[in-house]
Amino acid sequence: MSDALTYAQQERERFKQELHEFLRIPSISTDPTYKEQVAQAADWLVAHLKGIGLQAERIDTDGHPLVYAEWLEAGDDAPTVLIYGHYDVQPVDPIDLWETAPFEPSEREGKIYARGATDDKGQLFIHLKAVEALLKAEGRLPINVKFLLEGEEESGSRSISAFVPANKDKLKADVCVVSDSSMPAPDRPKILHALRGILAMELHVNGPKGDLHSGMYGGTVHNPAQAIAEIVAKLHNEDGSVAVPGFYDDVLPLDEEERARLAETPEDLAEWREKTGAPAPWGEPTYSLRERIGARPTLEVNGISGGYTAEGFKTVIPAKATAKLSCRLVAKQDAHRIYEQIRDYIASITPHTVHSELIMLDSGPWALIDINTPPMQAAVKAYKAGFGAEPIFSREGGSIPIVAGFQAELNTPVVMMGFGLDTDNLHAPNEHMVIDQFYKGIDTAIHFYKALAEEA
Amino acid sequence: MSDALTYAQQERERFKQELHEFLRIPSISTDPTYKEQVAQAADWLVAHLKGIGLQAERIDTDGHPLVYAEWLEAGDDAPTVLIYGHYDVQPVDPIDLWETAPFEPSEREGKIYARGATDDKGQLFIHLKAVEALLKAEGRLPINVKFLLEGEEESGSRSISAFVPANKDKLKADVCVVSDSSMPAPDRPKILHALRGILAMELHVNGPKGDLHSGMYGGTVHNPAQAIAEIVAKLHNEDGSVAVPGFYDDVLPLDEEERARLAETPEDLAEWREKTGAPAPWGEPTYSLRERIGARPTLEVNGISGGYTAEGFKTVIPAKATAKLSCRLVAKQDAHRIYEQIRDYIASITPHTVHSELIMLDSGPWALIDINTPPMQAAVKAYKAGFGAEPIFSREGGSIPIVAGFQAELNTPVVMMGFGLDTDNLHAPNEHMVIDQFYKGIDTAIHFYKALAEEA
Repeated sequence: MSDALTYAQQERERFKQELHEFLRIPSISTDPTYKEQVAQAADWLVAHLKGIGLQAERIDTDGHPLVYAEWLEAGDDAPTVLIYGHYDVQPVDPIDLWETAPFEPSEREGKIYARGATDDKGQLFIHLKAVEALLKAEGRLPINVKFLLEGEEESGSRSISAFVPANKDKLKADVCVVSDSSMPAPDRPKILHALRGILAMELHVNGPKGDLHSGMYGGTVHNPAQAIAEIVAKLHNEDGSVAVPGFYDDVLPLDEEERARLAETPEDLAEWREKTGAPAPWGEPTYSLRERIGARPTLEVNGISGGYTAEGFKTVIPAKATAKLSCRLVAKQDAHRIYEQIRDYIASITPHTVHSELIMLDSGPWALIDINTPPMQAAVKAYKAGFGAEPIFSREGGSIPIVAGFQAELNTPVVMMGFGLDTDNLHAPNEHMVIDQFYKGIDTAIHFYKALAEEA
Repeated sequence: MSDALTYAQQERERFKQELHEFLRIPSISTDPTYKEQVAQAADWLVAHLKGIGLQAERIDTDGHPLVYAEWLEAGDDAPTVLIYGHYDVQPVDPIDLWETAPFEPSEREGKIYARGATDDKGQLFIHLKAVEALLKAEGRLPINVKFLLEGEEESGSRSISAFVPANKDKLKADVCVVSDSSMPAPDRPKILHALRGILAMELHVNGPKGDLHSGMYGGTVHNPAQAIAEIVAKLHNEDGSVAVPGFYDDVLPLDEEERARLAETPEDLAEWREKTGAPAPWGEPTYSLRERIGARPTLEVNGISGGYTAEGFKTVIPAKATAKLSCRLVAKQDAHRIYEQIRDYIASITPHTVHSELIMLDSGPWALIDINTPPMQAAVKAYKAGFGAEPIFSREGGSIPIVAGFQAELNTPVVMMGFGLDTDNLHAPNEHMVIDQFYKGIDTAIHFYKALAEEA
């Protein structure tokens, strides 16, 4: 066993306590009231990276800060790895479904429960600890390392998207590694080679100038809460496909090879039922569940609101109603074009008795990555050593907006090595990280850095 | 001028200040957190009624208290009037649209702004002040008076609905008077002879057992926020009529006489546009606006909610969504039958990919009252004296659940004399009472009591 691996094993308990500390900071990026706490998480990372021997800085932006750190003493012949992660987290509501407070990390049955435990604080911290183990135990890293950590992944990655193209020299690397995904089981590591893009929108439907009494006007005014339902209902066809004209025009068709590979990691129906608890599957009938998630775009209603929603009832015709809509996009859909298609379609189906407006909030591109590269093979080797199992390659339905940016702007292949589990409840109440995954992740990262140096 | 009218004129400023005091009590009956304040408003009324010389008591119920008061010294030959009103008020949200705080009465341009100013604290207080003026200035009333004031009109009138049939002797009267309606203009008094009934329901749509990440499951789970929109969208036909089978079966058809009478008080399109601010009218195309409001039933979405609705966005598939639905019912629809029809219809259109449930929250009957009675003629006379104009008879779209109860249980004709104006913003932000209407209302009530004694 290498000195770094021995060190990592001896220091496990301390590593875990440090993660607790990191998880206590409520760095919710999408809610402006948490702005201070997001900055606090960035400062915590800068201090921590300096503590383990890197040069680190906080880079302020128009949004939340970026954290950059580097150790470049491995020499010009050694490869340079850009490690990406995000220290911001999702909102916590519905808060009443959490068994313990989301920002008071709590351990139960070998898991750490906290918002951000797996997405992505726990996973990015794995790389910090792998770097620390190598530096402290062996005095050096086999590779040059650059960390680029953002605080806006859960709210559109706007600042980093501007920073990357403007700092190509600073970020120059041979490979980029991202740990912000999960594996189906502890003995089934997984490397992602495709991600869906994202498009977030807000639909406003306005009717009367103010709330009206349903007794005085009911029957003569098109109720905006009803009208938004009528508009939203027309976004999908009866079979679950999206009804917006042109929506699927630019979607890459799945060839037989791709369908075969996707079939190797099927979304098992029994498992789907168990994980979702939904009465029955839904969606495009000519595609498998795995294909719907990995290779097909969606249009979701993430939220809908209008009128009186508190306890009891109020006989009101609300003045307005709102829906939060988002798309998961796939190669080669263009977010702006899709937004325009949805906007035009909604305008065309909005009755003349109400007004509607569709606002684009944010977008992030999809990614599709070549699986036949040396860094991918280094990742395979590392997982075999760290988890004792050969990883599978997979397409995933989620979005990591900046991954496509690294590909496009830096021309750097991206290796997406996840250490979470599919059951970690990310974006939901009771998010957690399995502690054993955290420890094995650190070992795997150490193996990966060494394998990269050997492959080079 | 009678002594009572002179007294009422001299004491106007004090009467108004007392109304301010009454309006300061936030007696929102539909929200359980205001339970204490509703009771406080009842106690305030009991003390006030005692102060002006009536026997008064607070009657506790399973819900909010009733207030009962009487003065029965006019003699057996004099008619007895049961005066009904409600001291509870609507919720105040959206609170940010109020120009001044809803429970801090504020006077601007001859109006008192406050929640309850017109609905119904201001209007019921008119009768208290008319009774006070007669007792203080003339030493007696020309009629026997019974007040029955409730605190649950805005939340279903449950307690009074049980109280009335159980206390027929106590409430025995020759006529009931209710001031909880409005007139189109200060020179156009209006007596209502029809009210719509009410049926309040809550629709729950459930899908996955918890909120899901739209990246991990989007495309395979029927999103409840989308599904509720699909269900709600099917409640109406394209032309605005209600799509629930059987919904119109028991509706009394409008005969030519009724249509002619309704046409005398048309809902003017320009006025409708000005008051609602909505882009265009909506609803059953074969009925006039006035008919849609006065004589046709409706099914409204008073509120809809599900998923993430705060600032920013969250890529979630919500576990559930909720809609608050209510119907305005007309003669001779039965609320329970209509609830069952809607429940069965929703069950029949709910896809197998989600669960739905429709809960009945509350109901109140419609009313249809004969306009050819002596008390109605006394009201006509009183309005002529108080407002200098002949009143019109009208059907209205709102609901006063207990009115039908007085008719059915006590066999007492109900005279619905409104003193508010259509523009008072009841059930909406910036509710107000025009101060001159308040003063003229007191004079009119004095005239009404005297005319009732003369007609008897």
